Amino acid sequence: MTSRMQREIGEQPEALTRTLDALLPLRSELRQLATGRRQLLFVARGTSDNAGVYGRYLVEIHAGLGVALAAPSLTTHYAVRRDLSDTVVVSLSQSGATEEIIETQAWARACGASTIAVTNEAVSPLAAQADLALVTQAGPELAVPATKTYTTQLAAIAVLADALGPPNDYLATALRRVPDELARLIVTRPGIDDALAALADRSRWLVSGRGLVYGSALELALKLEETCRQPVRALSYADLRHGPIAVVDRATSVVLLSAQDGPLVSGMTELALEVAQLGAQTVGIGGDDRFAAACEVAVAGPDLPELVAPLGLAIPAQLLAEGLARERGLDPDAPRGLSKVTQTDARG
Amino acid sequence: MTSRMQREIGEQPEALTRTLDALLPLRSELRQLATGRRQLLFVARGTSDNAGVYGRYLVEIHAGLGVALAAPSLTTHYAVRRDLSDTVVVSLSQSGATEEIIETQAWARACGASTIAVTNEAVSPLAAQADLALVTQAGPELAVPATKTYTTQLAAIAVLADALGPPNDYLATALRRVPDELARLIVTRPGIDDALAALADRSRWLVSGRGLVYGSALELALKLEETCRQPVRALSYADLRHGPIAVVDRATSVVLLSAQDGPLVSGMTELALEVAQLGAQTVGIGGDDRFAAACEVAVAGPDLPELVAPLGLAIPAQLLAEGLARERGLDPDAPRGLSKVTQTDARG
Repeated sequence: MTSRMQREIGEQPEALTRTLDALLPLRSELRQLATGRRQLLFVARGTSDNAGVYGRYLVEIHAGLGVALAAPSLTTHYAVRRDLSDTVVVSLSQSGATEEIIETQAWARACGASTIAVTNEAVSPLAAQADLALVTQAGPELAVPATKTYTTQLAAIAVLADALGPPNDYLATALRRVPDELARLIVTRPGIDDALAALADRSRWLVSGRGLVYGSALELALKLEETCRQPVRALSYADLRHGPIAVVDRATSVVLLSAQDGPLVSGMTELALEVAQLGAQTVGIGGDDRFAAACEVAVAGPDLPELVAPLGLAIPAQLLAEGLARERGLDPDAPRGLSKVTQTDARG
Repeated sequence: MTSRMQREIGEQPEALTRTLDALLPLRSELRQLATGRRQLLFVARGTSDNAGVYGRYLVEIHAGLGVALAAPSLTTHYAVRRDLSDTVVVSLSQSGATEEIIETQAWARACGASTIAVTNEAVSPLAAQADLALVTQAGPELAVPATKTYTTQLAAIAVLADALGPPNDYLATALRRVPDELARLIVTRPGIDDALAALADRSRWLVSGRGLVYGSALELALKLEETCRQPVRALSYADLRHGPIAVVDRATSVVLLSAQDGPLVSGMTELALEVAQLGAQTVGIGGDDRFAAACEVAVAGPDLPELVAPLGLAIPAQLLAEGLARERGLDPDAPRGLSKVTQTDARG
């Protein structure tokens, strides 16, 4: 039996192509919307928030703007007022229907921000009330764990970063390579079965990634929590060394995600060696040859430059979460206690 | 046998008094340093980062400035340049010797920021290179898990927020009540023994707090990881509902932290009822009467207003981490694999 999640994982190359076709032409509009604005604020929760973490790094690195992640309770519960006349607020919600996000977007407009909504629902309150909606073209997603709505969000964010960055088409060109790369990883699954067997063997899982890949680590951990009902921490190696590394032992499997290039591959390789010395099993996703050799189990990552690597790293992450759930006899499509649209506060 | 951690927990009322005496007189200097600056950026790792999370909420709520938390790798690994001429950068490091934080502070100066160092070491590179150093007066801290260096950091941040906020002395007055409140909680330990027994009974721990108390939840989770070698997630109820709640079951104990007042007590109370319905045990720290009644085990919190409640909530959190470690036969003073000064990247 194929799970819905598995089918939707397979639909990502086409979903990405459709999304890029729809959004790349909006770049001049995006540039215009951001004219005279000095910073970005991402507003999101859950998987969308992990996409926002990618956006935070990508926009700072590629476009040189300051970026912060919103704490929605400041708006919805503390009624803080801010001058956002120098800010573009980017709200991410796959359904476009999470009240907290809609409310925060409305607050941002009232504070003088220009607003961009990233959503998979063209007809949604979030899209309707934004200055500009980047509507991802994932199509209907039925499994509760987000897959194609997540990678198309990453694509939308990369299109935005391209629009705000230097006019060299670097990101757009890299993005055009993504769908084929995803298709290759989905079909060949290099290293996935070894990783499934290895992870099934340990009771404690930890995920690490840093910089541009940090959001991918957070998303893998969230996916594992949703599908396998097991708490999983995701930490940059910086945060890991500042305390939580105390939990790493022989019962632990550490999943490390890395781009194949960029300034953090060597630090991730050192982390693999360090946690192995503490007795942990290491499963490496992506990285370069030295990284793969340092990990006990190596899962191939995408052949993509670091700035867009997170779109490719999502595939092995999703395949692991889906596969591990099925090995445990759990239904990956329907995590306990979750539904497709989440409201943060009970109403009534 | 008394642990060092236990002794240092007990030293906090005096450490706080000394710190307030030293730092409250610096408020006009702080105000001057921030004149014409529109936002704050906190730079920190580990426990100091959790203090920064408190600072983020406190400064936005009390002083109305925009606040972001730095991602140091943007500086140390991606060499991003920013215009920080409208920003005050606040770097937190108990030792004042973590290279990554020192490097990021130097970067911030070069980008035009004014810089404030919060550190427990008057003679440290971080203090020497800042425009102004807020030196906490915790005295030497020998146990590896931070206790008094953390609560004095919170006090330093609250002094800063007072300086930047409305000139009504509200925070300063509330802060002056903190030392006695800490002393009371340390001596009477209301509910601590019940909570220790309850937590020892479950294998999976989860922590939740939101808004001003979110940093306290992160810090309790970190403390439990350090002393008990067990992975512990801390999530706002917003983030918890967006996926991770799938892990909550009958093996789970959820520790909920709340101030006794403020806009989030009722949401935290609803969360207690919700996770109890999923079979989890609930241990509530602080809150109001309704919150305490909704939790299976109630630990008293401080009689302090929400804006400074995190200073008081630290006490039961520390007592729990210390007590649980000892019940497990672990030495709370010396977590596995950690030392007092952490360097993020291996050098050499």
